[in-house]
Amino acid sequence: MTRVHAGSDKLRRDLEAIVGSKRVSTREADLVAYSRDMWPRLLLAVRESGFAEVPRPHVVVWPQSTREVAAIVRTARAHQLPIIPYGGGSGVCGGVVPLYGGITVDIKRMDAIQNIDRDEMLCAVEAGVNGERFERALTRRGFTFGNFPSSIYCSTVGGWLATRAAGQMSTKYGKVEDRVAGLTVVTGRGDVIETDGLARAARGPNWTQLILGSEGTLGIITAARLRVAVAPALRVLRGYEFESVAHGLNAIRQVMQRGLRPAVVRLYDEVDTLAHTVQLGEDEESNRDPDRFAPVPEPGTAALPRMPKESPASAQARRRGVLSQVSSLFGQASQGGNLRRLLRQGAMSAVLSRPRLFNSLAGTVAERLTRQGCKLIIGLEGARIRTQVEAQLTFDELERCGGRNLGEEPGRDWLEHRYDVSYNMSPLFREGAFVDTMEVASSWERLPDLYDSVRDAIAPHAVVMAHFSHAYSEGCSIYFTFVGQGKTAVECRRIYDAIWRDGPAAATRAGGTISHHHGVGMLKAAHMNSEHREAMAVLRGIKRAFDPEGIMNPGKLGLGAVAGLSEGDV
Amino acid sequence: MTRVHAGSDKLRRDLEAIVGSKRVSTREADLVAYSRDMWPRLLLAVRESGFAEVPRPHVVVWPQSTREVAAIVRTARAHQLPIIPYGGGSGVCGGVVPLYGGITVDIKRMDAIQNIDRDEMLCAVEAGVNGERFERALTRRGFTFGNFPSSIYCSTVGGWLATRAAGQMSTKYGKVEDRVAGLTVVTGRGDVIETDGLARAARGPNWTQLILGSEGTLGIITAARLRVAVAPALRVLRGYEFESVAHGLNAIRQVMQRGLRPAVVRLYDEVDTLAHTVQLGEDEESNRDPDRFAPVPEPGTAALPRMPKESPASAQARRRGVLSQVSSLFGQASQGGNLRRLLRQGAMSAVLSRPRLFNSLAGTVAERLTRQGCKLIIGLEGARIRTQVEAQLTFDELERCGGRNLGEEPGRDWLEHRYDVSYNMSPLFREGAFVDTMEVASSWERLPDLYDSVRDAIAPHAVVMAHFSHAYSEGCSIYFTFVGQGKTAVECRRIYDAIWRDGPAAATRAGGTISHHHGVGMLKAAHMNSEHREAMAVLRGIKRAFDPEGIMNPGKLGLGAVAGLSEGDV
Repeated sequence: MTRVHAGSDKLRRDLEAIVGSKRVSTREADLVAYSRDMWPRLLLAVRESGFAEVPRPHVVVWPQSTREVAAIVRTARAHQLPIIPYGGGSGVCGGVVPLYGGITVDIKRMDAIQNIDRDEMLCAVEAGVNGERFERALTRRGFTFGNFPSSIYCSTVGGWLATRAAGQMSTKYGKVEDRVAGLTVVTGRGDVIETDGLARAARGPNWTQLILGSEGTLGIITAARLRVAVAPALRVLRGYEFESVAHGLNAIRQVMQRGLRPAVVRLYDEVDTLAHTVQLGEDEESNRDPDRFAPVPEPGTAALPRMPKESPASAQARRRGVLSQVSSLFGQASQGGNLRRLLRQGAMSAVLSRPRLFNSLAGTVAERLTRQGCKLIIGLEGARIRTQVEAQLTFDELERCGGRNLGEEPGRDWLEHRYDVSYNMSPLFREGAFVDTMEVASSWERLPDLYDSVRDAIAPHAVVMAHFSHAYSEGCSIYFTFVGQGKTAVECRRIYDAIWRDGPAAATRAGGTISHHHGVGMLKAAHMNSEHREAMAVLRGIKRAFDPEGIMNPGKLGLGAVAGLSEGDV
Repeated sequence: MTRVHAGSDKLRRDLEAIVGSKRVSTREADLVAYSRDMWPRLLLAVRESGFAEVPRPHVVVWPQSTREVAAIVRTARAHQLPIIPYGGGSGVCGGVVPLYGGITVDIKRMDAIQNIDRDEMLCAVEAGVNGERFERALTRRGFTFGNFPSSIYCSTVGGWLATRAAGQMSTKYGKVEDRVAGLTVVTGRGDVIETDGLARAARGPNWTQLILGSEGTLGIITAARLRVAVAPALRVLRGYEFESVAHGLNAIRQVMQRGLRPAVVRLYDEVDTLAHTVQLGEDEESNRDPDRFAPVPEPGTAALPRMPKESPASAQARRRGVLSQVSSLFGQASQGGNLRRLLRQGAMSAVLSRPRLFNSLAGTVAERLTRQGCKLIIGLEGARIRTQVEAQLTFDELERCGGRNLGEEPGRDWLEHRYDVSYNMSPLFREGAFVDTMEVASSWERLPDLYDSVRDAIAPHAVVMAHFSHAYSEGCSIYFTFVGQGKTAVECRRIYDAIWRDGPAAATRAGGTISHHHGVGMLKAAHMNSEHREAMAVLRGIKRAFDPEGIMNPGKLGLGAVAGLSEGDV
């Protein structure tokens, strides 16, 4: 917990002089509310010991203009206090935790959609605008930004930019960094810089790409000029089934490398596919009958299926049994609320407490269930004629690569539920479990190894599944979902930390990146050195150039607190 | 001229220990050869006073590996000598001039095409590979990098990356910065950094975009992993005529904003169109008869055409006369060699010595010749079916916007001559004239003002024409070509400097960038402050992070020589 700042009266007066007294708060409720984001580890901490141990800012301010933000940063410099930029608070890496206290700057009052320029297809927005509101405003005018993160209802444009976010349709529209024509940034010096009018200039480095992803450690993004696209006239969605992940990945690669750009590409691994194909009726039943979960064998005693020696009928029966078990578990896991019910009933706990065994079983079953296949959701959208042509070419390619057409339904179903996940996680925590996701990425060649390595790193600790999405011509992202449980709060946190110690390390060893679109924050800070190696010295140098006193969001992005700025000082 | 380095024997021995004695040279011929690039001002300087006044490096080295480059940089640090990275020497901004002497590092021996990975559609190359050789190697394997600068025969991949180059088909394939998955860079500290394995990571700033365009001021790019595309199965080229630049620009904007991505888009202004539509037979005749160039009126006496009061017949006749004059001049200007002949005959000199008047006349004529229109070259390429569909949609859109189909011929003609310009300029200089180009860029909204402003800034000094190319959804580039002449070498240089003082300043005032794809070097260094404003402090800070002693290509990119490193010291 942060201590009281010696000059806190003076600080408050200085800030009030900038934004007025109504937009400065040191109220307990505000300081607690701004102490965290949606990082699951913070939920665990709060569950463990309430809010007492969570670091708080000294003060929260709500500026309404870039000029005010610049004045606030200059004030922070004068007081030698940290600045923590705050948007929607929907981050999942602890990027806004006020580790050393300081001034939390909530930019949500800077939410003007200043101008949609039809001639340039650019939209000038303030960084605090809510994502869904932004997209809706564009839709009304016949445009789209094309960024649809599952957090769209609770995240801000500024947060997207600060973390290099990607939406569910990034395969067509790009990640946010592909759609930025310019930024307005208040640096840690309190200067205002405008990056790259037209981001195509050849007069030195690209500042925009330097600020994007910097997570508040170099400056505060206060406004942006973003590229918008014409709203799609046609959207085509379809499900496909592939024999295996490898077959599905090959099909995606072929589509991408032919220059086709579907909006949505999501390939679920065998386990994740089961979770998505589970029939609701059966699940409802299984929820009511915990005995349907066969007791999980103790470690070392698990008799792995030896199918070749079984009779087809017995194999099929047993396969169905295991399938049902796996389906239920993952089907429920993907529907947070139901899993919560299962946890209450104690049925899931037996499974979650033996993740290594379960994952090994699930993996083997999945392997044997190859004939059940992996599901791919694919969607194309855009101008009518081109989308029709491209959809046909895409479907032809998928079928050439062994895909079996499942029709429109799986795609429509995905579309309908695509934002659900952000709202189903918290309840699980109250039941003593935790859920989190780990999004890594690499090139096609390294993907299989990346998948195996990260999965193997998580498997001893939690039940894990994955899907492949956000495709590029040279590779794609893997999105792992894992559910864990500990007997005590301390054990929960220990397991959680073990996953985040081993998972990103495995990703680095396999030549993948530790983050595709969630960012780094505190969560992956320890992995920044092995991710960037010699370039970390460059990052530190750049940090000094933007923020000589180290006041900008200290302790994040693997940039340790700068000397002279420690908890004791603030 | 640089002085002899005090420890030059030691320096030579140190370098020989790294690369061997055959790959180190202090021979006069080598030092002269590596003293410059294709910056026209250097041609003027050499014409004026030979090579005596051109700064030379102390030594030239030809490393063959990243390891050797790193050792050379560390040696330069030890000797406190500048490092000047050198590729093809085809730059046009003086980026490789050894202003303070030092070690010129020619990377052309690092020319391995290490690996074309079909699975990832990435190609790993060393930075010294020649552009045309690189593209040819890809073509043989069914791929293309898609970067076709007019310098392709004499530039290197490393040079492209260091300057954020763009090729003639960048509208489809992107500028080079869009096609880089990763770089190997030796920083000014002598460290080797690898930037962004998969350039989609969300773990801080994007290093690749920080190195691209840094023109050797932060480090030396020694290798790159580049995205390649499938070689086109179909190429469709066509010419269109538009009533005016404004009509043509609107058509391009509509095409781009519908998400269509032609490979080539080149819209010539009225004067440039005339230069391209001139009939060769007529020109040959005009070459032989200098009297066909009517004497240009003295300033102040020019009777501008007052068409409304003229009889249609007389207007037409006079229009033809002026048209013929303008056509001849620009037709010849675009064919360097012929202009040279004209200059020898003294006919052109009369025109070139009165550029303001001529430009005003040409402008007025062009305006009146609106019915002659502006020419657009458009080309699409790629997979067969999609290219057919997209070509039809593109042509439909161009015609909807008032374009008149000129058939295939203009496109084929452009394609055939597309690299000529890089080889036709030098001869003009021997005749006392100079030619140069200025490539600026902005958003659609600002383009008309940018065009007028820069044209007006150049017009008093040289005969000027322009075309619009390298289109994006939000804007495009303007490529000005200008031909000037001075009575003496000193006057030539004065005129040249005035153009480069006024032109970029006008671009900045009109909200454009001073460079779209040629880079900055020495040529535009003075304009970097007004281009970047507050962000120049950031650039200086970044420079210090990469290159604490300021040895990397000092004096370029508006980064002044670092204290302690001046001509006297080296």
